[in-house]
Amino acid sequence: MDQEGRQRVVIENVKPNINCGAYPVKRVTGEKVVVTADVFADGHDTIAAEILYRNSKDNTWKTSPMKFVDNDLWDGSFRVEEEGSCLFTIRGWVDHFTTWQKDLVKRIDAGQDVSVELMIGADMIDKNAKNANGDDQKKLLNFSDKIRSGNAGVAFDDELSLLMGLYADKSAATVFQQEYEVWVERHRALFSSWYELFPRSASPNPGRHGTFKDVERLLPDISEMGFDVIYLPPIHPIGITNRKGKNNSTEAGPEDPGSPWAIGSKEGGHKSIHPELGSMDDFKELIRKAGDFGIEIALDIACQCSPDHPYVKEHPEWFKWRPDGTVQYAENPPKKYQDVLPINFETENWKKLWDELRSVILFWIDNGVKIFRVDNPHTKPFGFWEWLIKDIKKEYPEVIFLAEAFTRPKVMYRLAKAGFTQSYTYFTWRNTKDEFKEYLTELTKRDAREFYRPNFWTNTPDILPENLQYGGRAAFISRFVLAATLSSNYGIYGPSYEICNNTGIEDKEEYLNSEKYEIKHWDRNKSGNIKDIIKKVNIIRKENSALQTTFNIEFYDSDNRYLLCYGKVSEDKSNIIVVVVNLNFFHKQSGSVKIPIKKLGIPEKQSYLVHELLSDKRLMWQGSENFVELDPETSPASIFKIYKRLKREDDFDYFM
Amino acid sequence: MDQEGRQRVVIENVKPNINCGAYPVKRVTGEKVVVTADVFADGHDTIAAEILYRNSKDNTWKTSPMKFVDNDLWDGSFRVEEEGSCLFTIRGWVDHFTTWQKDLVKRIDAGQDVSVELMIGADMIDKNAKNANGDDQKKLLNFSDKIRSGNAGVAFDDELSLLMGLYADKSAATVFQQEYEVWVERHRALFSSWYELFPRSASPNPGRHGTFKDVERLLPDISEMGFDVIYLPPIHPIGITNRKGKNNSTEAGPEDPGSPWAIGSKEGGHKSIHPELGSMDDFKELIRKAGDFGIEIALDIACQCSPDHPYVKEHPEWFKWRPDGTVQYAENPPKKYQDVLPINFETENWKKLWDELRSVILFWIDNGVKIFRVDNPHTKPFGFWEWLIKDIKKEYPEVIFLAEAFTRPKVMYRLAKAGFTQSYTYFTWRNTKDEFKEYLTELTKRDAREFYRPNFWTNTPDILPENLQYGGRAAFISRFVLAATLSSNYGIYGPSYEICNNTGIEDKEEYLNSEKYEIKHWDRNKSGNIKDIIKKVNIIRKENSALQTTFNIEFYDSDNRYLLCYGKVSEDKSNIIVVVVNLNFFHKQSGSVKIPIKKLGIPEKQSYLVHELLSDKRLMWQGSENFVELDPETSPASIFKIYKRLKREDDFDYFM
Repeated sequence: MDQEGRQRVVIENVKPNINCGAYPVKRVTGEKVVVTADVFADGHDTIAAEILYRNSKDNTWKTSPMKFVDNDLWDGSFRVEEEGSCLFTIRGWVDHFTTWQKDLVKRIDAGQDVSVELMIGADMIDKNAKNANGDDQKKLLNFSDKIRSGNAGVAFDDELSLLMGLYADKSAATVFQQEYEVWVERHRALFSSWYELFPRSASPNPGRHGTFKDVERLLPDISEMGFDVIYLPPIHPIGITNRKGKNNSTEAGPEDPGSPWAIGSKEGGHKSIHPELGSMDDFKELIRKAGDFGIEIALDIACQCSPDHPYVKEHPEWFKWRPDGTVQYAENPPKKYQDVLPINFETENWKKLWDELRSVILFWIDNGVKIFRVDNPHTKPFGFWEWLIKDIKKEYPEVIFLAEAFTRPKVMYRLAKAGFTQSYTYFTWRNTKDEFKEYLTELTKRDAREFYRPNFWTNTPDILPENLQYGGRAAFISRFVLAATLSSNYGIYGPSYEICNNTGIEDKEEYLNSEKYEIKHWDRNKSGNIKDIIKKVNIIRKENSALQTTFNIEFYDSDNRYLLCYGKVSEDKSNIIVVVVNLNFFHKQSGSVKIPIKKLGIPEKQSYLVHELLSDKRLMWQGSENFVELDPETSPASIFKIYKRLKREDDFDYFM
Repeated sequence: MDQEGRQRVVIENVKPNINCGAYPVKRVTGEKVVVTADVFADGHDTIAAEILYRNSKDNTWKTSPMKFVDNDLWDGSFRVEEEGSCLFTIRGWVDHFTTWQKDLVKRIDAGQDVSVELMIGADMIDKNAKNANGDDQKKLLNFSDKIRSGNAGVAFDDELSLLMGLYADKSAATVFQQEYEVWVERHRALFSSWYELFPRSASPNPGRHGTFKDVERLLPDISEMGFDVIYLPPIHPIGITNRKGKNNSTEAGPEDPGSPWAIGSKEGGHKSIHPELGSMDDFKELIRKAGDFGIEIALDIACQCSPDHPYVKEHPEWFKWRPDGTVQYAENPPKKYQDVLPINFETENWKKLWDELRSVILFWIDNGVKIFRVDNPHTKPFGFWEWLIKDIKKEYPEVIFLAEAFTRPKVMYRLAKAGFTQSYTYFTWRNTKDEFKEYLTELTKRDAREFYRPNFWTNTPDILPENLQYGGRAAFISRFVLAATLSSNYGIYGPSYEICNNTGIEDKEEYLNSEKYEIKHWDRNKSGNIKDIIKKVNIIRKENSALQTTFNIEFYDSDNRYLLCYGKVSEDKSNIIVVVVNLNFFHKQSGSVKIPIKKLGIPEKQSYLVHELLSDKRLMWQGSENFVELDPETSPASIFKIYKRLKREDDFDYFM
C-alpha cells in the first residue's frame, strides 16, 4: 500500500550539495564525506536518521547512522573507497520504540500505572521480532515476554535497544527527494607535487634544442627533489606565421623557436610532436622512464591554433573570418596576439569541434598520459568542459585535469564544478597573515571545500610574482614552504624556481627573457639554489599524512604580525604538524605562537617534544604559548612535528 | 539546429528559491520579487540577462531586464499582479554588439585602423535588422550604411544601442535550468489586524451563553477599533466525556462548558455548530454583517476530537487503541489531556482521513469562511498540510491559513514552506532592543522573508506573557504598538487585551480563570482600557502604506538601551514612518534617536517637520540626531510621520 501519507519525517538542507545537486561533490579514495541535514517530524516523537550511499553502479544502499547535533540539525559521515561515481541521500523515520522508552521513564517517575504501557511496548517488540531471525528473534521475544509480565526495568536494556534499532520498521521512513553525487578520484588528485619544465631547454649543450631524451636525463634530479608530476608546456609543432620573438616581440628572427602555445604547423597539430623534441616513441619512453621514478608526465591542453594549424584549412568554420577575408587572431583590445587564433566555439559545427577536441585527449590517453593541465579553460565554454570531462572520466576515472584559470572567483569555482580535478588559485598573490587566513578559510571551510581542489603554484612561465622578484632567496624558501604545506597539491616552474631566478620586467610580474619565447640553458645547480630545502620539504610531505590534505588546516595565533602559524592534524590525530613562516623576507622576527594543546590532546602542565624537521632539531615546548624566532638569512620557515605522550607511562613514540 | 553547445552564458545561485525550488516563494498582489543570480560567460565578452516570468496558466514569458551589480552578481525585479501561481527563471546571452562597441572605443583610442571592424559591426546590425520591421528596420539599415561607409561615431548612438538590444539574437541564450514558483495571494495575507474572541462570552447578560447574534452586536465596537479579521475559537459541539472544568481541572461541574478545542459530541463534529451558539443561518448572517464592516470571520481548524466525536465510532482506525481496549487520549508524558483524542495520522486509512479533513475546510468555505487559523499544525504531518493547502488554494487562491505553531524555528519555517499564508511567531517573548533587532532581521532580511509571513500576537487565550502580566497598562500600549507597527499582520485576544486584563497564574504565562474553560462576562469598556489607542494605531496603519508591509523595516540607533527606534518607508519613498517605543514600562526614558536622513532624502542642514500621530503633535527636527522622551504613564510609544521638503521652493506637503 502507498506509504506516502504516513511519512512523518521531513528532511531538508542536505549538505554537501553543489548547485542543488547539479554538480557532484569531489573526494579522493579513502576520504570521508561529512553529511548534515535538518531532520525532524511533526509532534514530539523521537526520530532516527541515516545516510544511504552507494557506488552508482550498485543497486543496494549502504547505511551510516546520523546523530542529532542541535536545533534539528543532524550529521553523519561515510567513507568513499572506490574511484568513480557514488550517490548519497538521507533516510529518516519516527522511532516509536525509543519514544516509548523515554515516555515510560517519565510515567514511572510520575508514579503512574504503566501496566498498559508495558503491553504496548511488548507488542512493538513482537512486531519487530517478525523482521528478525534465529537468536535475535528469540532474544526479542524473550524481552517482550518479560516486559509483558510486568518487568519494566528490562525495557531499557541496551541489547534490546540495539536490536530494536536493527530491526526497526522503516516502512514509513522518508527518503530525501534527491540523490547527490560524489566523484571519487585517485589519491594523487589531492596529493601531488608538480614540476613544470620546458623540454626544449633541457639540453646539456648550449646551442642544441632540448629533447625528450634530455628530459629523461633530468629525471633522477627531479625525483631526488621529490616531485611526482612533471608538466610539459605544449609539445606540438609551433606555427611560423606571426611567430613571436624574444620577450614577446612581434618580429621573430630565424633562430627564434616561437611560443609553444602557438600550436600547429604543416608538421601537424594537437596530435603531433614538435620534431625537434623527438618522436612519439621517445615521448612514450619518457613516460615509462618517469614512471620508474614514480613520476607522471602531464601535458598541456590549449584549445587554440597557430595560423598554420591544419584545422584552419580543414575546418575554416571553427575560426572567425573577417569581412576582408582574413582570419581573426586573438585579441584583448587594444592588445593583439597575432600568433594565435582562438577557436570559435559559437560555430554551428560545434558538435564536430567538440568531438575533435575530445579525440585529442583520447589520443594522448592512448599514448600513456593521465594528467592534463588545461590552458585558459575560462575562455572556452563551461558546457564544453562539463561534457568533455564527464565523458572522459566515465571511461578513465583516473584522468586528472588541472584548470589553469586566473580569473574571477565565481568563474574559477564554476570550472571546478564543471569537473576539473584541480585548480590554480590566488595563492601566488596572497602575502599577509590576514590574506592567508581569509583565503584558506574560504577554500577549506566553506562551500568550495566540496568541489574545488586547490593547486598552489609559486610561479609559472607567465608569472614571476612581486614577492619572488623582490624578496630574495628567503622569499623563494618561504613561498615554497607555504605552497607545499598550506596545500597538499602544489607546483613550481623550474629550474627558475629552485635556482632563485628573479630577473623580472620592472613593474610587471613577468620574467625578463621569458622561456616562453626562447630556448634557455640553465645552470641547474647554480650556487644559492634551494634544491636541498625542496627535497626536505617533499620528504616531510611524504612522511607526514597530516600534510597530504589541504582541508584540515587550522590557523594558530601568534603575537607577531609577520609570523604565520598553522597546524595540520591527520584524521586519526596521530600525526601533528605545525608550520611557522616568517612573512617578512628582510628582517628576523620572533614571537610566541599559540598551540591549541587541549584540542591536540596535550596535557596543560606537561612539557612535550617537538621536532623541527627542516633543521632536524628537537625542542621541548611547554603549554600553549611557545617562542619562535625565524631569520630570513638562515631559517625563514620551520616545520614542527609535535609528539604527544599518549599515556603517562609510555615513552615518546618517535615513529607514530 | 541544436543550440545547446553554443550557449556560453552560465546562470547559477538564482534567488529567491526555497529548498532548491521545492517550495514556492510567497508574495501578495502588487508586491515586487527581487531576483538575483550569478551570471557570466567564458572569455571577456559583454553579456546581458533578463528575468522571464509568467502566470502559471499563461504560455508566454514576460521579461524584465537585469543589471550587473558586482562580482558576477546580477539583479532585477518583477511585480506580481494576479492571485495564483507565477513562475520565473532567468535568461542570459552574450551581447556581441555591446562587446563590439566597447572594443571599438579601445581600438580607436589606441589609434588602430578600424575599417574592417566597422564592416563587422555593420554586418551585425544588418543581421539584427532582419528581426525588425517597418521603421525600426529602416533605422537599423540606415545605421549600418553609415557605419559601413566609415562613420565610427554613429556606432555609439543611443537609439542604435536600444534597437540592437530590442532585436538581439537570443538563439544561443541560456535559460536557467529551473523555473521557480511564486504563490501570489491577496493583500490581506500581508496586511491584517486580527481580533480573537470567544462567542460564548459575548452575551450582554451574565448567566446566558453568548451567541453569534451577540457577536453581531459587538461588530460596531470591534470595527471602530479598526480590526478586519475576527477569529473565533472552535464553534463546534463540545464533548462531555472527560470534559475539563475551570482552570483546566479534570473534574468538570455540570455548568462547565468545556474547552471548545474538545471538538465533537453526539450533536456533531467539525461540520456542526455548538447549538448554544446558534444555527448555521445565524453563522452565515454573522459573516454577512461582519462583511458590511469590512471584517472577515476566521475559523479555527483543530484536527483532534473529543472522545464523543462521531469520527470515533465511524472511523476507529483514525485513533490509537490501547491493548486494554481504551482509546488513546492526548499526552505529553507525564501530562495528560483526557478531553482530547489526537488523530492517528499514521493510520493505513490515511487517504480517507485526509479527504475527510479536506472536506471540513471545503464545507466552511462553502459557508462563506475564507480565513482559517490552524491549531497546533506542527503536531500533524507536514505532508498533509502541503497537500491540503495546495489543493484548496488551487480552487480558492483567496483562502488564508494561519499556522498556530509555537515550536522550534525550523519546524515553524517548514510549515510556512508547506503553504501556510501567515504564521504565529516568537514576538510574544521578545522584549529587549537586541532581541527585536535580531528577530526582525531574521524574519525580514534573510531567507524567511521569501516564504514566512509573520503575524505578531500580543496574547492568546493560552498565553499571558510575562511582559503583560507585570508591565501594567504601559506594557499593553507598548506591546500593541510594537505588534502593529513591527509587523503588518498582528492580532490580539480580546477583550482581555484592550481592558488590560493581566490576572495570570503566578510563574506561568497563563490566564487565571481562563476563558478556555469558562464563560466570561466582560466589561468591555472597563476604565483604563486602551481602545482609543488601538483605534488610533489602526487608523495610522490604514493611512500610511509604509506600515502595510513587514519587510521594509530598518532599525535606527538610539543612545538609550530602552528606546527602540525603527523606520518604515513605502516603496516609492513618499511615506516615511518612524516609531519609537519605550521598552521600560516602569520608568521615563529619554535619549536621541538617529534618523538616516541622507537615505531618506532629507537635506543635512535643514530642519524638517515631523508629526507625532498618537498625540497629533507637530515638531521640528534637525539633522539626524533628535531628542525623544517617553513616559510609560502618558506616552509609552510615539509614531512619527516624517515630512521631507521635495524642492526648496515647495511648501510642506502635509498630505503626501
